Amino acid sequence: MKRIAVLTSGGDAPGMNAAVRAVVRKAISEGMEVCGINRGYAGMVEGDIFPLDAKGVSNILSRGGTFLQSARYPEFAKLEGQLKGIEQLKKHGIEGVVVIGGDGSYHGAMRLTEHGFPAVGLPGTIDNDIVGTDYTIGFDTAVNTATDALDKIRDTSFSHGRTFVVEVMGRNAGDIALWSGIAAGADQIIIPEEPYDIKEVVANVKNGYLSKSKNHHLIVLAEGVMHGEAFAAKMKEAGDNSDLRVTNLGHILRGGAPTPRDRVIASWMGAHAVELLREGKGGLAIGIQNEKLVEHPILGSAEDGALFSLTEQGEIVVNNPHKARLDFAALNRDLSN
Amino acid sequence: MKRIAVLTSGGDAPGMNAAVRAVVRKAISEGMEVCGINRGYAGMVEGDIFPLDAKGVSNILSRGGTFLQSARYPEFAKLEGQLKGIEQLKKHGIEGVVVIGGDGSYHGAMRLTEHGFPAVGLPGTIDNDIVGTDYTIGFDTAVNTATDALDKIRDTSFSHGRTFVVEVMGRNAGDIALWSGIAAGADQIIIPEEPYDIKEVVANVKNGYLSKSKNHHLIVLAEGVMHGEAFAAKMKEAGDNSDLRVTNLGHILRGGAPTPRDRVIASWMGAHAVELLREGKGGLAIGIQNEKLVEHPILGSAEDGALFSLTEQGEIVVNNPHKARLDFAALNRDLSN
Amino acid sequence: MKRIAVLTSGGDAPGMNAAVRAVVRKAISEGMEVCGINRGYAGMVEGDIFPLDAKGVSNILSRGGTFLQSARYPEFAKLEGQLKGIEQLKKHGIEGVVVIGGDGSYHGAMRLTEHGFPAVGLPGTIDNDIVGTDYTIGFDTAVNTATDALDKIRDTSFSHGRTFVVEVMGRNAGDIALWSGIAAGADQIIIPEEPYDIKEVVANVKNGYLSKSKNHHLIVLAEGVMHGEAFAAKMKEAGDNSDLRVTNLGHILRGGAPTPRDRVIASWMGAHAVELLREGKGGLAIGIQNEKLVEHPILGSAEDGALFSLTEQGEIVVNNPHKARLDFAALNRDLSN
Amino acid sequence: MKRIAVLTSGGDAPGMNAAVRAVVRKAISEGMEVCGINRGYAGMVEGDIFPLDAKGVSNILSRGGTFLQSARYPEFAKLEGQLKGIEQLKKHGIEGVVVIGGDGSYHGAMRLTEHGFPAVGLPGTIDNDIVGTDYTIGFDTAVNTATDALDKIRDTSFSHGRTFVVEVMGRNAGDIALWSGIAAGADQIIIPEEPYDIKEVVANVKNGYLSKSKNHHLIVLAEGVMHGEAFAAKMKEAGDNSDLRVTNLGHILRGGAPTPRDRVIASWMGAHAVELLREGKGGLAIGIQNEKLVEHPILGSAEDGALFSLTEQGEIVVNNPHKARLDFAALNRDLSN
Repeated sequence: MKRIAVLTSGGDAPGMNAAVRAVVRKAISEGMEVCGINRGYAGMVEGDIFPLDAKGVSNILSRGGTFLQSARYPEFAKLEGQLKGIEQLKKHGIEGVVVIGGDGSYHGAMRLTEHGFPAVGLPGTIDNDIVGTDYTIGFDTAVNTATDALDKIRDTSFSHGRTFVVEVMGRNAGDIALWSGIAAGADQIIIPEEPYDIKEVVANVKNGYLSKSKNHHLIVLAEGVMHGEAFAAKMKEAGDNSDLRVTNLGHILRGGAPTPRDRVIASWMGAHAVELLREGKGGLAIGIQNEKLVEHPILGSAEDGALFSLTEQGEIVVNNPHKARLDFAALNRDLSN
Repeated sequence: MKRIAVLTSGGDAPGMNAAVRAVVRKAISEGMEVCGINRGYAGMVEGDIFPLDAKGVSNILSRGGTFLQSARYPEFAKLEGQLKGIEQLKKHGIEGVVVIGGDGSYHGAMRLTEHGFPAVGLPGTIDNDIVGTDYTIGFDTAVNTATDALDKIRDTSFSHGRTFVVEVMGRNAGDIALWSGIAAGADQIIIPEEPYDIKEVVANVKNGYLSKSKNHHLIVLAEGVMHGEAFAAKMKEAGDNSDLRVTNLGHILRGGAPTPRDRVIASWMGAHAVELLREGKGGLAIGIQNEKLVEHPILGSAEDGALFSLTEQGEIVVNNPHKARLDFAALNRDLSN
Repeated sequence: MKRIAVLTSGGDAPGMNAAVRAVVRKAISEGMEVCGINRGYAGMVEGDIFPLDAKGVSNILSRGGTFLQSARYPEFAKLEGQLKGIEQLKKHGIEGVVVIGGDGSYHGAMRLTEHGFPAVGLPGTIDNDIVGTDYTIGFDTAVNTATDALDKIRDTSFSHGRTFVVEVMGRNAGDIALWSGIAAGADQIIIPEEPYDIKEVVANVKNGYLSKSKNHHLIVLAEGVMHGEAFAAKMKEAGDNSDLRVTNLGHILRGGAPTPRDRVIASWMGAHAVELLREGKGGLAIGIQNEKLVEHPILGSAEDGALFSLTEQGEIVVNNPHKARLDFAALNRDLSN
Repeated sequence: MKRIAVLTSGGDAPGMNAAVRAVVRKAISEGMEVCGINRGYAGMVEGDIFPLDAKGVSNILSRGGTFLQSARYPEFAKLEGQLKGIEQLKKHGIEGVVVIGGDGSYHGAMRLTEHGFPAVGLPGTIDNDIVGTDYTIGFDTAVNTATDALDKIRDTSFSHGRTFVVEVMGRNAGDIALWSGIAAGADQIIIPEEPYDIKEVVANVKNGYLSKSKNHHLIVLAEGVMHGEAFAAKMKEAGDNSDLRVTNLGHILRGGAPTPRDRVIASWMGAHAVELLREGKGGLAIGIQNEKLVEHPILGSAEDGALFSLTEQGEIVVNNPHKARLDFAALNRDLSN
């Protein structure tokens, strides 16, 4: 390939810029040309496409968010949108595209693949819930931000002898809650992948105070379970009589300068995406498994390791969905005594 | 005086530990003995008082919260509580006390003063709303934490072309909102000390997007105006049609390692409190005005510069309450164009 | 004035970008045009001047360094350079200039003033050693960075029972050493403005270990006294037998995202510089004294409050040079016991 | 086992406290007793051993350094010291010991193993150069600190158009240099595991400036190659004529609050060490390989996966020493164009 493009799609994640920079720099070092696409698939369909050079990405490595911007674009789920997008790519002489984002972005890449247009997916989301990879770009930064906030809240929690429920992002996956909870020494971590008993939660709080082993109590709650206020209400209903407060870390988890780990992973994956396209390979998603770069077919059969399969009715089946670290949930129970 | 005590009261603030350390170390360097009182006035009345030495405060300078803990204790508003507290102090041989906290803490110090027990107040609160001082211990740290969060939210705001309403602490004072808003380049800052017109707020948002000068919009809202969700609802009612999100920074603003400035100010004030007590002076609150240490009578007449006066009915009058930096509000309007 | 320019000169300092942004945005809000000058006086003389608009400064508020870049340019000390620079300014229709930097930058502004060209100086240096101001843009950030590093070094110092000499920037002024030293709980702070006795320094180290009150020892040394290695050698000569290490924080103190305080101060000063030029006032340097904005004539008599006077021989006399906070040096001695 | 002990040895690393906490908490949750040993093997031989409970480790998770302190103790290389140490352990009823540290610490654990005393090693060092593991406790934090410093230095480097040589720790391994260099977008990374040609280094600098693609240049140098000053001198000798500066990050890389990743890894490994001892297993070192916990015999044959073997002459052979990520070195060359 002579000319490729790169876009970011879905929720922004720290390290997306580092990945874009790697795609651009690696492509140039391979003698290829590279274009940026603004606002994800929306910009692709609208033709909001522009050339990028090495200098154009020289200040973005350490910056949060995505300078290419992102946007939701449900129209790309329809055939018309897809064909229009591919037409625009061809008009700009683009032979392959790197898509950085989460599930929705991968679905878009899957459609490009269906139509025979070479696309390579990179997992970019703070939630760490993408199939085919142990780590996603942005996860490490989000865990750092969450842990930093939890450390701060612990100061107040201790000073006032309070119980805190702290809600962190994670609609389907408890990974941010688990990692930041262990890192901050949370007394309890509640995640969507594991059942909990509200009476036991309340009993744990009570026992901590009674045994004098704790003067405060920190509960980390993944958003996918329910909102913090609702969880606190359930606790009160179940008999909690501690001085209970709720904080929702909300959108601060999305932004910020990426951690070195996210920058390195993004750089590594971004460069590899170019290598695949250079060899003419598309329809693949890059991941990190066992600390090695891997690639899976985006679309195909489960036996072939494809991330998604289509049923005869055209429904998307997710093969091998991301699994929770239930061993980490157990670890925290041992350490929070 | 031979023996003094120190307590923290009200909401915790980063730098309280630095102030306690300074009180302890300075007292020791002056040949005095010093005790810590746990959980503020509650601990005073209960006699939860213990000796402190130089080594006992050697690891707390950089830690958020207050290792002496804090507590609300409405009973100290009553005569009985006050007398009981003084009795406990005397029982422990304590001749003077340093009180670190906000308004409520100062009221307690005022009562001790009324009863002739020497107390010196230090302004410790993130809100910067204490009378008699330009800066309170904890304010600089809270502004740093808020700005850091706003910088992160801006990443997402830019990446998605969104409008964000970010609520920051500040029930009576907009200082955190103003300083962090200017620091983060907020497009609008809404504070309790200044009226606003919701139609104008919405028009500003609209004009920013229309003029293409902005692709996103950041509004910093002090909690004293109303909650973020309510404000966003008002904006929608007034015709806002942007992609609007709300985040409440909540309790993360209270904790965290104090900034150097908070540590230095706390150290400076804490040492000075000991100097006053050593000279037998009580009934005073220490502040920083024009970058110099000042002290004001806690209770007395406005002419004498006292922070509080009592009416004949016994009601507390606040002389010269803290004023908002309306010049900073105007400055931000000039810079957010 | 209709059109002004802004430059940064001398060593870069965090917050310079915030000041440039404020100059640009405020000028625009006053209906003026504004240009940037690259690489300080060098760019002025070479005519490296370009128009700036509001959007052009929209991402720089939180960024360290100076996007206008800076450069040493000794040629501006000569008449020829000065006249050439003014010629360039006039060629670009520029009627006034804002100069952000340290001592050398102020000397340049003084020369412009001599030639009748309106210049306003803003104090931008991490060293806090500029005449006519209590605080310089960049100082707060440098203190934060230094304190953060000292906190880290203390971890190792404690873990190994070591003595550390940590050198921080400050050729003439011990301000960074004093503030960061107090903030980090340094055992000793050595600054150029205060004599020290190396035997006493070593005795303090020894006594700390002997008395068992300390298991480690942290000495903060301002670069203006001597280099850390040399100081350590002197200590060893004077009989120190502790496990002694040296670290020089070096250039990390110059960079980094400015603290909110530096951003606010820079914004406040930058906007005020435009107000002065708008009123046709030049030959002034802006400072903060007693937490208020002040302006002093750059050149004139000491009685008129001018920063600099010229002798009959043309030598520059600094009136009221920056003074060290010797009270802070004493404070730290009390608190490091 | 009923009673175990834990010690930290060698250079301190962020996360050692988290590992100690995990050992203590996990042991208690398994019904075992646990002791801390102060100052590594020195404290073991001197019997500086004390009981630890859950509350005693409740505030250390987020703290840098090691609260158990560390010390060099060459006497433990001798038989006499080893036997004395084991005697002390037995005197305190200790049946197994967890050793957290680097190479030297592992050698000590090997000796305990030789004498039949159950020891489990955890890799704790910022250098990431321990055999039998992909990651060491403290590495992620050191990379974060180094990257943060490099980001700051880049601000100044850009502002002044300078070349910087930044020396980072890493006597044998270039891992810190590689990860932080990629993360900070270093123009060149020089590590001990890869040869370099000083003429090529200088040519790269020159070409960057000539091609106008770079206005500054950042070289990250691992300490194991040579010191920064020496490298800069070699560059000058080889014809570099850029404005060249040197900074040595030095000891700030050792300290600081551990990153969440280091806290999680340390917690995970610490808990697993207790599981091994509980099952009566000793003579093992825990590592992370392919994101899974693994354990290797500390002493034995290479075929059995042992970390160390002893020759007939008693010399220590390191099997499978840590390997540099030469792929990352190549990656950075592609991205720094």
